[in-house]
Amino acid sequence: MKRPTTLLALLLPCVARALLGAELLPQETRQGAEAVRDRALQESRAFEWVQRLTDEVGPRLAGSAGDRAAGPWGKALLESLGFVNVHLEPVPVKVWERGTESGEIVSPFPQQLVLTALGGSVATPEEGLEAEVVAVESLEALAALAKASPDACRGKIVFFNRKMERGETMNGYGDVVPIRGRGASRAAAAGAVGVLIRSVGTDSNRLPHTGAMDYEKDLPRIPAAALAVPDADLLARLVARGKPVRVRFRLTCGDRPDAVSANVVGEVRGRERPEEIVVVSGHLDSWDLGTGAIDDAAGCGIAIEAARLIGASSRRPKRTVRVVLYANEENGLAGGQTYAAAHQAEMPRHVAAFEADSGGGAPLGFSWNAGPAAAATVAEIVRLLEPLHAAKARNGGAGGADVSPLLKSGIPLFGLTQDSSAYFDYHHTANDTLDKVDRKSLDRATAALAALVYAVADLPEALPLIPKAQRSRRD
Amino acid sequence: MKRPTTLLALLLPCVARALLGAELLPQETRQGAEAVRDRALQESRAFEWVQRLTDEVGPRLAGSAGDRAAGPWGKALLESLGFVNVHLEPVPVKVWERGTESGEIVSPFPQQLVLTALGGSVATPEEGLEAEVVAVESLEALAALAKASPDACRGKIVFFNRKMERGETMNGYGDVVPIRGRGASRAAAAGAVGVLIRSVGTDSNRLPHTGAMDYEKDLPRIPAAALAVPDADLLARLVARGKPVRVRFRLTCGDRPDAVSANVVGEVRGRERPEEIVVVSGHLDSWDLGTGAIDDAAGCGIAIEAARLIGASSRRPKRTVRVVLYANEENGLAGGQTYAAAHQAEMPRHVAAFEADSGGGAPLGFSWNAGPAAAATVAEIVRLLEPLHAAKARNGGAGGADVSPLLKSGIPLFGLTQDSSAYFDYHHTANDTLDKVDRKSLDRATAALAALVYAVADLPEALPLIPKAQRSRRD
Repeated sequence: MKRPTTLLALLLPCVARALLGAELLPQETRQGAEAVRDRALQESRAFEWVQRLTDEVGPRLAGSAGDRAAGPWGKALLESLGFVNVHLEPVPVKVWERGTESGEIVSPFPQQLVLTALGGSVATPEEGLEAEVVAVESLEALAALAKASPDACRGKIVFFNRKMERGETMNGYGDVVPIRGRGASRAAAAGAVGVLIRSVGTDSNRLPHTGAMDYEKDLPRIPAAALAVPDADLLARLVARGKPVRVRFRLTCGDRPDAVSANVVGEVRGRERPEEIVVVSGHLDSWDLGTGAIDDAAGCGIAIEAARLIGASSRRPKRTVRVVLYANEENGLAGGQTYAAAHQAEMPRHVAAFEADSGGGAPLGFSWNAGPAAAATVAEIVRLLEPLHAAKARNGGAGGADVSPLLKSGIPLFGLTQDSSAYFDYHHTANDTLDKVDRKSLDRATAALAALVYAVADLPEALPLIPKAQRSRRD
Repeated sequence: MKRPTTLLALLLPCVARALLGAELLPQETRQGAEAVRDRALQESRAFEWVQRLTDEVGPRLAGSAGDRAAGPWGKALLESLGFVNVHLEPVPVKVWERGTESGEIVSPFPQQLVLTALGGSVATPEEGLEAEVVAVESLEALAALAKASPDACRGKIVFFNRKMERGETMNGYGDVVPIRGRGASRAAAAGAVGVLIRSVGTDSNRLPHTGAMDYEKDLPRIPAAALAVPDADLLARLVARGKPVRVRFRLTCGDRPDAVSANVVGEVRGRERPEEIVVVSGHLDSWDLGTGAIDDAAGCGIAIEAARLIGASSRRPKRTVRVVLYANEENGLAGGQTYAAAHQAEMPRHVAAFEADSGGGAPLGFSWNAGPAAAATVAEIVRLLEPLHAAKARNGGAGGADVSPLLKSGIPLFGLTQDSSAYFDYHHTANDTLDKVDRKSLDRATAALAALVYAVADLPEALPLIPKAQRSRRD
């Protein structure tokens, strides 16, 4: 094949768009996607689903009473909305329970501390854990300290005091969250007996942010909790005075017997190729402190409503749109993993998977991961979001935590990206309640997701799979 | 005396200002006041005092360990800053303790409720108090309901769900706070067994606002608690569905044996008439949930620093400036009442009293209450605040809760008014912590108070007393 001339090479994208756009995204597909998008802006009921889930079920950590109520709640809702093939798929889950928690500065000045156990933490001794505090800013600073002075952390409580930056994206979270996940074991490796972290959040409320952590094998499992930001500030000021600061905290949390939760599944049947499946999802579980409104009732509401609007469309897309409300995203990811395993035989018929797990903020665009040849089609699809000022497509990523187990099968993955600038004020706190969800932004996010899902479900040809070399998760 | 012509009458204020201004507020007084004002903007240490009080003492509800620590803390600070006649004055206080508290919606959907006992509430039975909820918006609505349907509240929990309006002034608070103070007895009169109120606050955090309440004589004393705003919203949504909503809550709060707290007093001695006294004050106690940063470490910091700057002035004012850090403002007002009683013999030598108890917001002006002839002098004094954009003098009021007992002696009373638009996001909650105090605004408030106090303490003649007819508190 002759390579194109330089000029032609420059013109090719424009030419391709003009000549081929129609074929990559046929006019009827575009119109169908625009129709569901615009209908969402007019009559989205997403907020109603968020309200019902948070009011009627409330907190729903895997294995809790709320979690047991959530599956039947989701099944009943999908049935009432006319989805087909509605059912629960059992998900065995590990169970962790918070119990009670308290903390205080013992000296130099007695003060209560507001803190919460990190998910997965072991309990303290019953009388609490009391020790002197060593403050560090990062995992790297801890490593450097332990190297320079091997006894610096021995017998102490390591206090990670790293501020999270506010931003439209989730980058600030990514910067800090490794401290939450790995801080306990890294501190244990340095001889510490307990860990406190500054909450991973952008607010300054006396409401600590929980979240999952892991223990490394072969290291002592030490209790780990997050301080509310004002409490971290107080502790940091006292430590900065240069005299020993002693803290005591008490956690009764811990693992409980395994349980069985459920993914909720329901479908809008495809017009021409009903056997081919586009997954649109959120996660039904939540942390226990709030009612899980932004995380992730919002995503469930967006996904359910996008699918409902597609189902109500006068021209349904070619393929089946399958709503999945995953169990146990927060504290184990068993829902996503179980889905991938249980549907292995069906994987070749999975055309794409979308996840909404970024709260109720206004849409900014989406991430996509598929074979490189998908780029031209994605470039057409993204234009559907121009009226929403959300026409940003970022190549990469694994769509979202729950759909990421599909990566190894190469299924094209999409994640809705949303304005997250206020998200981490509330994320994983008692403050994650309905009042934090802005109806208008939620409706715009629903419109964006509905258009994207419609378009992908109605493409003439399925998008190319993610190349084998890129099927391990890196981000 | 011949009455002035109409023209002269119109011109009189301007003429008076030109001719008499210098006499009402002599140039050296004006210059001295401007100097302390400007110095406050340059080198105020008010934030340092707020930080030390909140970090080193923390919460300090009358009779608590923090309250016992606060007096000696204040005395040591005033001594270290060079105040004279520094001493503690004992204040017998009633003691109320919060204990533990919890609440939940029992049906139709089990949900935890975040609530806190109102100060002065009795405990619930040990197993908690469970009943159906009746929602009303106001005391008036309750009265109307009880009249129309005498059994509507019998055996039930009355839920007052009145929203507080945000604003620069404290008006929104004044509108709602009677529900907190009187709601329990009014509900008891209607046969209720418990009371929940929507927190008196402008935020939407899961952090309830406590505050004082009173029981009327001869009515059953029923437990009373405030719901965090998101919890009040949830309860209101469930009640609005029209089916019975049952709530259970449990409080272990109650009165404890009386104790002795202390007002902290220190002075900057006057240059010419040291026996004449101008009081500048805040209250040292706080609610127990937060560290009392905005309420009222901020006021203490402003008052201490204003007096310190006046003491450091190259030309001290004629009269003595007496700092008073009152005990027990929040839950009894014993500090202000004890001061007024203990200093009764000294009242004729009290020239004026100032209180700062509006947080750390930027100054807006001040309220004043004195004989009407003071108006011309006040009009001169207020000009000192023009560079701070705070030249608003409002005639009326009682200066502040702690100085209000001086009203019956006719002592001229001043209250610093400050921007309160964020104040009620944090007021009386666990969120009242140092991070909520803006240093720059606090310094401006300090500058305003320093100038006002200097001017009044250096006037050629003391301001006229409040007329006898106006010596009972009405606002």
